[in-house]
Formats: sequence, C-alpha cells, structure tokens
Amino acid sequence: MIIDCHGHYTTAPGAHTAWREAQQAAFRDGRAAPAYPRISDDEIRESIEGSQLRLMRERGIDLTIFSPRASAMGHHFGDEQVSAAWTRACNDLVARVVRLFPDSFAGVCQLPQSAGVPIGNSIAELRRCVEELGFVGCNLNPDPSGGNWTSPPLTDPSWYPLYQAMVELDVPAMVHVSAVTNPNFHATGSHYLNADTTAFMQFLQSGLFQEFPGLRFVIPHGGGAVPFHWGRFRGLADMLGRPPLHESVLRNVFFDTCVYHQPGINLLFEVIGVDNLLFGSEMVGAVRGIDPLTGEYFDHTRRYVDNLRLSPADRQKVYEDNARRVYPRLITHPG
Amino acid sequence: MIIDCHGHYTTAPGAHTAWREAQQAAFRDGRAAPAYPRISDDEIRESIEGSQLRLMRERGIDLTIFSPRASAMGHHFGDEQVSAAWTRACNDLVARVVRLFPDSFAGVCQLPQSAGVPIGNSIAELRRCVEELGFVGCNLNPDPSGGNWTSPPLTDPSWYPLYQAMVELDVPAMVHVSAVTNPNFHATGSHYLNADTTAFMQFLQSGLFQEFPGLRFVIPHGGGAVPFHWGRFRGLADMLGRPPLHESVLRNVFFDTCVYHQPGINLLFEVIGVDNLLFGSEMVGAVRGIDPLTGEYFDHTRRYVDNLRLSPADRQKVYEDNARRVYPRLITHPG
Repeated sequence: MIIDCHGHYTTAPGAHTAWREAQQAAFRDGRAAPAYPRISDDEIRESIEGSQLRLMRERGIDLTIFSPRASAMGHHFGDEQVSAAWTRACNDLVARVVRLFPDSFAGVCQLPQSAGVPIGNSIAELRRCVEELGFVGCNLNPDPSGGNWTSPPLTDPSWYPLYQAMVELDVPAMVHVSAVTNPNFHATGSHYLNADTTAFMQFLQSGLFQEFPGLRFVIPHGGGAVPFHWGRFRGLADMLGRPPLHESVLRNVFFDTCVYHQPGINLLFEVIGVDNLLFGSEMVGAVRGIDPLTGEYFDHTRRYVDNLRLSPADRQKVYEDNARRVYPRLITHPG
Repeated sequence: MIIDCHGHYTTAPGAHTAWREAQQAAFRDGRAAPAYPRISDDEIRESIEGSQLRLMRERGIDLTIFSPRASAMGHHFGDEQVSAAWTRACNDLVARVVRLFPDSFAGVCQLPQSAGVPIGNSIAELRRCVEELGFVGCNLNPDPSGGNWTSPPLTDPSWYPLYQAMVELDVPAMVHVSAVTNPNFHATGSHYLNADTTAFMQFLQSGLFQEFPGLRFVIPHGGGAVPFHWGRFRGLADMLGRPPLHESVLRNVFFDTCVYHQPGINLLFEVIGVDNLLFGSEMVGAVRGIDPLTGEYFDHTRRYVDNLRLSPADRQKVYEDNARRVYPRLITHPG
C-alpha cells in the first residue's frame, strides 16, 4: 500500500471558493457573511475524480492524507470568527471527500488560527475533526500573520495547550504556512521552504521533545533547506551545546518527499534516512507542469523514490509504515 | 590558485567590537559616539595570522575575498548616520587587512544601508571602497530591517541606482543579510538560508537581468534551499511563464560552495554545474566545530570539493576562474 502524506484539496468546487471571497468581502464591508452554499456530492465527486484521484490512480497511490488547500487557509485575514467559519467550512468539505472516497482519503484539518489569538482556541476544532469527523492529524501554521512572523517560535510554551491535545488525541501536525502578504516572498517558491527551515531550526534549539516525548511533526517539502545543509545543522547543534539531531529532533520530526527532482530525492534519502521520511507529493499542488528533462510531472515524486531501488523493507517504511507510525489513527484505513 | 569568495572578518580586534557597543549605547542614550579607537597594525596582524590566515594556509587557500562580519552589519540598528559610521569603520578595517596581507586578501565592503533609507545613499561608500580602497565587490542586504523585510524585493526599481553603480564599477554583490531581531529566526541557522532562497525566487520572477545584463550577484550558502529544490524552481519558472533558469537567472547569479557536508556539495555540483559555482567556505564563520563523522572542520569545504575529482578545467573554474569572472577587479591579485 502506498500512502501519500501530503495532499491538499486544491480543486475544491467553485462555490466553496466563491463563498470565501464573499465572506472576505463581507468582512471588509462590515456585513455578515452570506450562508455557505449547498454543494452536491456530485460536485465533490467531479472535483476529485478528474484530478486528484485520477493522478493517484495513474501513479499507483492508494491513500492520500488530505487537507484543505494550504495557501487558502489565510489565517492572517479578518479576525478569529472569520478564520473559524472558513476553517470549519474547509474541514467539513474534506470530511465529505473522505466519506465519498473512504478507501482513497484520510482527513487532516486546518486549524482556526488567527494572528494574536491563543492557540488554545483551536483545540475545539481539532477535537471535532478528530473525534467526530475521523481525521488523523492537523496542519499547524507557525505564522498565522501571513509572513510577519508575529507569533512566538513553535517551541514557546504558549503553543503547549495544542501540543497537549495533540498528544492526548495521538495526532501529529504538519508544519505548514499559508499565503504570504509581503511581496518579498513567493508563497510556494520561498515562504513555504523558509518556514520549513525555520521550524526545524527552532526544534534544534529547544528541548521541546523532552517536554513532549509523544509529540510528532511532519516538516513538508523535504524539510526546506535542511537536508541540503545537514552538515550546517549538525554543526550548529554542536556549537549550541545541543544533543545530536537524531536524539533531539528526529525522534519526533519527520520530512515528506515533496522534492521535485531526482538529485534532491537522492540527497534526502542519503542524509535523513528512511526512518524519518514519509512519502508525499503535495499534489495537486505547487508545481503542476511536466519536466521537459524527463517528460513526467515534476510532482510525480513516486518516480524519484522508485528509482532509488530501496530494499523491500525500506520501501515499506517510506510508502506506508512511517505514515502509520506518525499518523496512528490511520488504523481506520487498513492496508 | 585557490580563491575563497566568502570570508568575513569575524576575528576583528576587540577594540573595534567594543567601539560598536559604545556607539550603540551612545545612540540609545542620545549622546554622540566616542571617537573610534586606535588599533595598531600588530593587533590586526595578530587577529588574522592566528585564525583566518592559519586556516587558509592549512587548507591551501591562496586568496580570500574578505568582508566585514555579516551578522554584525546590523543595518536595522539606530539610524542612517549610525550605520554609515559603523560601515566606514568596518570597511576601513578590512582595507587595512588587505594592505597588510595583499597577497592573501581582496576587500569586499558592507554598505551603509538603513531600513527605509534610499539605497542611492549607499553609492558613495561603494565608490570610496572600490575606487580608493581597491575593493572588488560589495555585500548587499536585501533586508536592512533585520528580519521584518520592509524593503521592496531586490528586483524593484528602487534598487536600480545601486545596480547602475555596480555595473559602472564592474563589481558584483553578494546577497547577504545580517542579524535578525525576530526570535522565530536563528541568524545562521534559518535567516541566512531563507534570505538566499528568497532572493533567488525574486530573481526568477523578474526580468531584472534584461534591464541589467551586466549585473552579477553571488547567492551564498550554496543558494539556500534552491539547489535541493531545483526541480521545484524549474517547475515554478515554467508555471510563471518565465524562461528557463539558465537563461533568465544563471547568466547573472552564482552560488558559493558554503555547504558543510559531502552530500550537499555533490548535489550542488550535479544540479547547478561548475560554471555557476564559486569556491567559498564562509570561514571563520557560521559553524566552527569539527564534524565527528569526518574528524575535519565542518567548514573545510575544500575537502568536499576536492573529493569530487573534477577535471582540471572544471576545478580551475570553481577555484579561480569563476571568481575572476564575477569579481573582475581581482586583476589586481594575479594568479
């Protein structure tokens, strides 16, 4: 069985996206948001079958851990109520996808974060998604301000209430930022990768996982710049008097394989090793085109991983077992 | 001949650093800064011979392109006058190193940037350093706010006055941020790498080098996350309707080899290729320790490059010729 740990519902029905625009316009005008539209099961089926599910079948991916579109989470926009209503709508839509295609999708929720609002206010939605909707994890935005980084680092105790709930529910978080409002940054070209690198360095500097031995994070996009600069990070850990990274960070932090060329995947596996890698593609997502050098989609990451010719045991870890270890609630999706 | 394109004067005499502290304290108190201290040639010799020059000799590096300590540029601190006075002191000190060790060092200046101040105000110091002190390039901080990214992207026309001067003087800039004030970021662990990735993506998105075909940048730290995610960037260029990266960016943008482990260097050379790589070590710098896996210094990047067993012609490019092409004023330092 092949599990893709990183898929976003980027092809949600137009009515869903249009409602978000209407909600934002209403907030700007000081009006109440309109009622959320009725979206039929057929509309949802159509939005999935022709894109995400077709690509999964073409690539031999059995199950995608599926969450709302990351760039559209937009935690910086509006206020707490706006974020909460949008988040609930997004999570409910993912839950409907999972109910319509239970063999192919497991749900991961976005959180109703809002800049300056305590993270504890996101716990109820996490509980609802896990306990009522059967979701297996959440996406945690380390920068709900949308590029201004006004929240404290992820290792600050102000985040602990969420971590306590995550440990209790036995769900991990993928560290995933959303849109960025500063023109210096391109969302998928720099902001995402920068956030991945930033989060890893925060974990390196702290003793967070001594406080929460059961806490688990997935850093997406192959860990940003981290594997490429693995020697730098090993050296910084040493300089800062921190334990080796395999002890202090890699028991709790995992990377996906969303790296869109063979040399990057080669390095990722060589440096990080199969025990900390979860297969992922981030499709349908950041880079949609076909690589002229290979004639294949850039985000067809299974091709790169298959080319490694891993041993059957290692292959099983990366394609399935690590995902089940990090997202244990996948037990509802037997292999 | 082996040229290291990326060295900072991190071992400057204590009196220099103490003056900076006094200058900052004076600014905070609304007083005039004290006079800059007298620093003897012997103090400078001592600060160089026992560290930078010793390591260069041990590693067989003939010439270092040498600039003031990057993390201490501190363009976010104080105001334009504070930055200008500190910058002048730093550049003058590097000039003294170059005069004392003319065979071993070539100067690169920091610029008197200050958040919100037009970059045109930095041109006089660039001219002074190049025309009077014989410097061969500059370090350009894309974020003089120290982590708030309040300046426009490097591709914005507001930066053009500096670019015009750089082209006229035929000097490149290394894109290099300084200290960061936001606790989410660690200077050398995330802020530097994030800035490298950010700058590359800005160049990718723009037609800057059509405007300035003669403009040249070095992105340090192996280009941040870029080579590891080269497929992502090639795909984004395609999605954004930009020309292939070798046409639109790599005629004008170069990476150094400050990547502190063998797998990273292997990927860098495989993906970027020898025509766009300048040997660099960033020493004495970000990571000072010895890698327990190799028994060698993490930042002994020559070891990694030598291990590649490049052809003599390719080796010559990376160790010398590319540096001379990007920094043509090195003609004053014959091989």
